[in-house]
Amino acid sequence: IENQRDTDLVALMEDMHYADVAEIIDELDEDEATYIIKLLESDKTSEVLTELDDDVREAILGNLSAKEIAEELGELDTDDAADIVGELPNDIIQEVISEIMDREHARDIVDLLRYDEYTAGGLMAKELVKVKEDWNVLTCVKEMRAQAENVTRVHSIYVVDADDKLMGRLSLKDLLTTSTTTHIKDIYIPKVDRVGVNEKPEEVAKIMSKYDLEAIPVVDEIGRLVGRITIDDIVDVIKEEADKDYQMAAGISQDVEAHDSIWKLTRARLPWLIIGMFGGIGAASIINSFQAVMSEFPILLIFVPLIQATAGNVGVQSSAIMVQGLANDTVKGEIINRLLKEFALGLINGAVIAVIVLLISHFAFQTSYLISATLCIALVTVIIIAALIGTFIPVFLDARGIDPAVATGPFITTGNDIFGILIYFSIAKVVLGI
Amino acid sequence: IENQRDTDLVALMEDMHYADVAEIIDELDEDEATYIIKLLESDKTSEVLTELDDDVREAILGNLSAKEIAEELGELDTDDAADIVGELPNDIIQEVISEIMDREHARDIVDLLRYDEYTAGGLMAKELVKVKEDWNVLTCVKEMRAQAENVTRVHSIYVVDADDKLMGRLSLKDLLTTSTTTHIKDIYIPKVDRVGVNEKPEEVAKIMSKYDLEAIPVVDEIGRLVGRITIDDIVDVIKEEADKDYQMAAGISQDVEAHDSIWKLTRARLPWLIIGMFGGIGAASIINSFQAVMSEFPILLIFVPLIQATAGNVGVQSSAIMVQGLANDTVKGEIINRLLKEFALGLINGAVIAVIVLLISHFAFQTSYLISATLCIALVTVIIIAALIGTFIPVFLDARGIDPAVATGPFITTGNDIFGILIYFSIAKVVLGI
Repeated sequence: IENQRDTDLVALMEDMHYADVAEIIDELDEDEATYIIKLLESDKTSEVLTELDDDVREAILGNLSAKEIAEELGELDTDDAADIVGELPNDIIQEVISEIMDREHARDIVDLLRYDEYTAGGLMAKELVKVKEDWNVLTCVKEMRAQAENVTRVHSIYVVDADDKLMGRLSLKDLLTTSTTTHIKDIYIPKVDRVGVNEKPEEVAKIMSKYDLEAIPVVDEIGRLVGRITIDDIVDVIKEEADKDYQMAAGISQDVEAHDSIWKLTRARLPWLIIGMFGGIGAASIINSFQAVMSEFPILLIFVPLIQATAGNVGVQSSAIMVQGLANDTVKGEIINRLLKEFALGLINGAVIAVIVLLISHFAFQTSYLISATLCIALVTVIIIAALIGTFIPVFLDARGIDPAVATGPFITTGNDIFGILIYFSIAKVVLGI
Repeated sequence: IENQRDTDLVALMEDMHYADVAEIIDELDEDEATYIIKLLESDKTSEVLTELDDDVREAILGNLSAKEIAEELGELDTDDAADIVGELPNDIIQEVISEIMDREHARDIVDLLRYDEYTAGGLMAKELVKVKEDWNVLTCVKEMRAQAENVTRVHSIYVVDADDKLMGRLSLKDLLTTSTTTHIKDIYIPKVDRVGVNEKPEEVAKIMSKYDLEAIPVVDEIGRLVGRITIDDIVDVIKEEADKDYQMAAGISQDVEAHDSIWKLTRARLPWLIIGMFGGIGAASIINSFQAVMSEFPILLIFVPLIQATAGNVGVQSSAIMVQGLANDTVKGEIINRLLKEFALGLINGAVIAVIVLLISHFAFQTSYLISATLCIALVTVIIIAALIGTFIPVFLDARGIDPAVATGPFITTGNDIFGILIYFSIAKVVLGI
């Protein structure tokens, strides 16, 4: 397909959805990808660009002239355009911006560049329909028609005062059923959900999904309407958040995907393995320091993996429940009540596990009663303490303003490994009277 | 507040968003909650009911008469109403349905009950705007106005043929700029994304978020338009999916929240702890079977936690990347290439870890060269094998139609614990020549 048949290719691609075209281009090499992007019309390729993998997009944009990039940006909504401009090398940003034909569009993009990517300001688009409260219905309809040209989906009509302060929203039905000379200020709905430009994307996502909103206006520090965020951007935020939490729980420290380079994957994975390694070394020194126990009761050592695995599993379960509870705002009440609940839970789970282990160790490993007692007491203690640590750490981190998701995964597991082994041998020392 | 001041309470609650009212009611006891639901108007309370916690809603509905429940359902969209009816005890469903005033609404709800909750059919609502292809523009506008009354957000106008088969969609602009006698079949857009009633919710979510859709029509096996799914329901699906994967990775087998009862939490957590326990017992038997190694080189035992933690961490990392890749459809190419990549990754990570451990064990634990060599060879081998297992298992499960997310968490960890220890002692036997 790639070689000559340009017209066939164009015809084929024009019929496809841009998200599908992007998937195909992600699979091609750099030259082929650039070739196709140059071949297609910019109203199609601009959308394709937003859907591409970061690396692929960077490579393609590197092969386009400032003028060509400007053309693509001209077709995009301001939020998508600003995201792409933000990825360009600094020295060509100015050139690209100056090539954008629509000066107002260019101004909006530059405005958006000012906002931190991880705020509502970084997510919002400038495209929206707004009317002034002192207009009458006739002016309003005329202005709206002009504004709506640039807006893909209208969703809501926002009402602002002379200073651009967000006052409320307008119902389309009210607008159409009122006489043309009525003033907007007499018919608008003054209640409208909004978020500040500095709000975190997760918070915006929470608000929009709680109230089932499809778009939300964004206001600056003094209440002026500066943009709006639509639900499709929020869907991306929710997915990224979930992916990030999941990766953190699995001990992956950067946002990586299966097809990333070995080098990138190593950078994401090695740090956590090294933390785990130091945990293992720590456990080794602890065991080593209990030489007396080791030499007198070597049988105790064969149960070290059991203690360790149990401590790790309980810790991860407890912390995962807390991390999710904190993320969904369903954690209520005093922390002391939560800890008491985890204590009770640990006691029940620990008792069940201990009874099973007691039977197995007694019959399968012929351990003495004292060894079995040591094992069972250690298991119950370890389970309770691991549950308490797993519950407390996320709450503690959250209170300190740190994302509690870092607590799950290797940190909790490693900490609990060491604690678990320390508890196990300490209890052995007491029970066995060494 | 609770005692007498009904009018104040009503005034207060009427002004609040239903999602906020639901949050307050979740905190109250059953009697108070029922009292408030009965106090407020059903147009408000119906929405509140959909937002409540399952247990709270069940308790409240248990206190309402069939007639009262029917009133609430009458105010709801068919999809939300069907979800609530689906939770009612079988013996009162019929009574409730027969009390619903609007018979068509009742029919739609009953229709929706037929679909499995975990399909597109179970997600969709009956509310939509559809027009027949042989209508002219005038009839169409009239019909649309009537239909739109029942639809909260219109999104799209769907075009069907005489048999209700979905043919395409209509652009509002085209409709308004065409003469009133034009037939719909001459102006509709024949290309429209759709999903089948039996499609899985995750697939619907993927399609809608890939193509940035805000609503998608649902068709039955022979292409008839039976409902539509809106983006707000999909946001819930995405969040639930993410929560489920996260909980599975953490070894929690049911959908639980921090405030659930101890009994429910135990049922969700204990099964995985028992699996982990059997893993620990398995590890104990393996160590026990290497008595010769144990008695001659007890120092090897102190590094068991290190081997185990490393195997577990690597396995979880590899499987998490695969699970996410499979969920996002970003895993491409041959499985053999993925395994080769993991092999290379394991080699690099393993080498780094081994060198650090070599230095620490030599200087801090004064291990002999042979012991250090055993440890390093074992670490590299364990890391590589754990990475391969972690990569292979999710792919294997996915190919068998099982959710690969079950692979992460305790299963991989437990499996790798046992493998890791087996490899460690086997290598020790060979290197130390026992």
